[in-house]
Amino acid sequence: MDFKKRVQIKDILKKSGKEVILGGWVYRKRDHGKVSFIDLRDGSGLLQLVITAKTKIKGQKNLNLGMESVIMVYGIVKKRPANLVNKELETGALEMEVKELEVLVNNEEALPLDISKDIDKVHLDTLLNYRALTLRSPEIQAIFKFSEKIESAYRDFMKKEGFTEVHTPKIIPSATEGGANVFQVDYFGKDVYLAQSPQFYKQMMVGVFEKVFEIGPVFRAEPHYTSRHINEFTGLDAEFGFLRDENDIMGILEECIIFILDKLKKEAAGFKKILEFKDPVIPKSGIPKIKLKDGVKIINKIKKIKTAGLDLDTEGEKILGEYAKDKLKSDFLFVTEYPVSIRPFYQMPTKDGRFTRSFDILFRGLELGTGAQRIHEPKMLLESMKKHKLNPKDFKDYIDLFKFGMPPHGGWGLGLERFTKQWLGLDNVRLASLFPRDVKRVNP
Amino acid sequence: MDFKKRVQIKDILKKSGKEVILGGWVYRKRDHGKVSFIDLRDGSGLLQLVITAKTKIKGQKNLNLGMESVIMVYGIVKKRPANLVNKELETGALEMEVKELEVLVNNEEALPLDISKDIDKVHLDTLLNYRALTLRSPEIQAIFKFSEKIESAYRDFMKKEGFTEVHTPKIIPSATEGGANVFQVDYFGKDVYLAQSPQFYKQMMVGVFEKVFEIGPVFRAEPHYTSRHINEFTGLDAEFGFLRDENDIMGILEECIIFILDKLKKEAAGFKKILEFKDPVIPKSGIPKIKLKDGVKIINKIKKIKTAGLDLDTEGEKILGEYAKDKLKSDFLFVTEYPVSIRPFYQMPTKDGRFTRSFDILFRGLELGTGAQRIHEPKMLLESMKKHKLNPKDFKDYIDLFKFGMPPHGGWGLGLERFTKQWLGLDNVRLASLFPRDVKRVNP
Repeated sequence: MDFKKRVQIKDILKKSGKEVILGGWVYRKRDHGKVSFIDLRDGSGLLQLVITAKTKIKGQKNLNLGMESVIMVYGIVKKRPANLVNKELETGALEMEVKELEVLVNNEEALPLDISKDIDKVHLDTLLNYRALTLRSPEIQAIFKFSEKIESAYRDFMKKEGFTEVHTPKIIPSATEGGANVFQVDYFGKDVYLAQSPQFYKQMMVGVFEKVFEIGPVFRAEPHYTSRHINEFTGLDAEFGFLRDENDIMGILEECIIFILDKLKKEAAGFKKILEFKDPVIPKSGIPKIKLKDGVKIINKIKKIKTAGLDLDTEGEKILGEYAKDKLKSDFLFVTEYPVSIRPFYQMPTKDGRFTRSFDILFRGLELGTGAQRIHEPKMLLESMKKHKLNPKDFKDYIDLFKFGMPPHGGWGLGLERFTKQWLGLDNVRLASLFPRDVKRVNP
Repeated sequence: MDFKKRVQIKDILKKSGKEVILGGWVYRKRDHGKVSFIDLRDGSGLLQLVITAKTKIKGQKNLNLGMESVIMVYGIVKKRPANLVNKELETGALEMEVKELEVLVNNEEALPLDISKDIDKVHLDTLLNYRALTLRSPEIQAIFKFSEKIESAYRDFMKKEGFTEVHTPKIIPSATEGGANVFQVDYFGKDVYLAQSPQFYKQMMVGVFEKVFEIGPVFRAEPHYTSRHINEFTGLDAEFGFLRDENDIMGILEECIIFILDKLKKEAAGFKKILEFKDPVIPKSGIPKIKLKDGVKIINKIKKIKTAGLDLDTEGEKILGEYAKDKLKSDFLFVTEYPVSIRPFYQMPTKDGRFTRSFDILFRGLELGTGAQRIHEPKMLLESMKKHKLNPKDFKDYIDLFKFGMPPHGGWGLGLERFTKQWLGLDNVRLASLFPRDVKRVNP
């Protein structure tokens, strides 16, 4: 059959009575003696095919087809009887009476699992081991179509606000941010590292374009094995200059999130047919802010114990998420006033030197990202390095930047996979990554 | 001065006679006794500031300002005398009479170079050593603004054609494509690699979304030190299913390139004020195609020697580029019919087994990228691996994919930096990378 004349399933919605050529995968099969039904899946949707004794089979003698075999079909698009309409599908009111079916690839070996059955009950490891197969499930596909929409709305907002999109290097000469959580790379015999964020480079780019953003991979050698950590994720970063303090950063981030929420409310409502989720809510007064110490007080009160340090653990974040939802009617929450001691050296301290001008943003009780104003004066930066016991020699190019003149500036970094996970209510962040990498997994 | 009231230079075009607040960097300075001129640069452009005895200076006692110092100014926007209009700038007909100048950061140390003077004569190593400074030059900024437009047009085309944007992992378990040119990563004590292309993953995604594209970093451990190689670049990848052969791939790639050319012709004409370049040309009949063996004949004839093998070197590509330009009136050229022996194992062979269904695309005599139909049948793939002396055990997940049912498919990979380099006529691909990585350089 002629591939050039093939259309996609989404294109036949208004083609009842017309003859078309389709191509795709055998998603489901039902044999009823003289009539067989195949649910055909292509990149755009699902459609029921009706195969009878009159259907001409090409490429092999019979209709013995393994699941996920690849076929082309030629036939007439018909309306299904009203009582048989599948309301979950866009094309659920249609079917094709197949005149000719050509087998392009017949899967001879049985597949490790049937993706058309109870995909939500499949064990996570199985889902991930056979990712090239399980990603084909329409429910799982939808997660990534949705994630693409979040990313796209993020880019639209940043461009609308005059931010320039940049690509900064992922191979970097020294462990940025002074952290230990970096992967080492053998670079022509020299030890270099994978960027755990575009931090220093996006700051450099503020000196150039003033407002920049980047969407790209971020690598964290954190040995955590939890439902919220993966070791390679897609960072949604931004950085800009000429701001007063961290409140200006939270202001733009709030606008950004509201923009994304509004856009997807309009454009992604159709996903509710296949994914179960609630639209995130932000009160009219904006994303509420809470000081870390007040957050800890709330957590201590609820847990009826005293948390050890002045920081949030997973459970603490969850409690604050519930607090924000119940008391403040918000799915998002800014946590502010983090002490200098638990934040990176490059974050701007408050005048009294106790806190950083930084924040975390929680989405339904999970850290979605972090932001801060940065130190922009070389002397202050050197002092901060000393306090954090870092050697300025390891940061020569970074310190040089501030000798070139930098305005007050700052920005944020969010994780796309966590954004998707929390929005869609997924159990595990791995479900929002096409091919997740964790401490135990680099396959497939 | 209030950052919130600050506007950008681009916003004052229609504000002659109005009072505004601006903020930016001291790009150029001229003292004429009682009057001083500063060219202020912000993320949107340049503007001349006029400072007189009446100007109130804040933040320090005098107007001693190092180059690239950061200032805020408040004053009145005025029209410049007609004979002093700077036609190279959008804001060249305007200047600001400054009432108040606040010094945010004064660069006390002298800068390593003056970016406002003859940036095109600065040695490449100097340009790259002080990248955070030299990128601020408006001429160099423009390269990346232009590159952003190429990327954006590429994305627009792919989305318009129904391709889904994906992010595939950059940390991969084995050296893809059987090549040796991969960087090794220490992944929690295990040896893994950086992806030298999204090849296998984008193929897997054809089974899911049918049509996918990716824009992301690509890592090549090639030890070449040339003007056309960098070891980390931005790949513009695409892959799709249900095609007849490599001609369908070249067809869509041609449409894509024409779309990008048309879009930038409209949207990026303004760049000609600052960058010298010619719009690339494609004849009405489309991008011409030449068989590798015919290309080699042309090269041999011109070089008056017989090239050793059946492949193109840098000089050969250059000669074919000139041939395409002179004889075929095209800045782009497809080179087809590459022998199986010099192409990766996963490329689909022709029926007689001599050639691959692959192509290179040259842009003004430089390889911009490669494309091919892929093998989609497990048996054929195993045979091809045997021929290429590869061990199927190293490609388990990849081979599995083809047991899950794959239609005829293929795609391409282009390099964004080479696209920009050739379009703008830059001498070196490093000039099209913000922070280029090569055999000798991982800094800054």
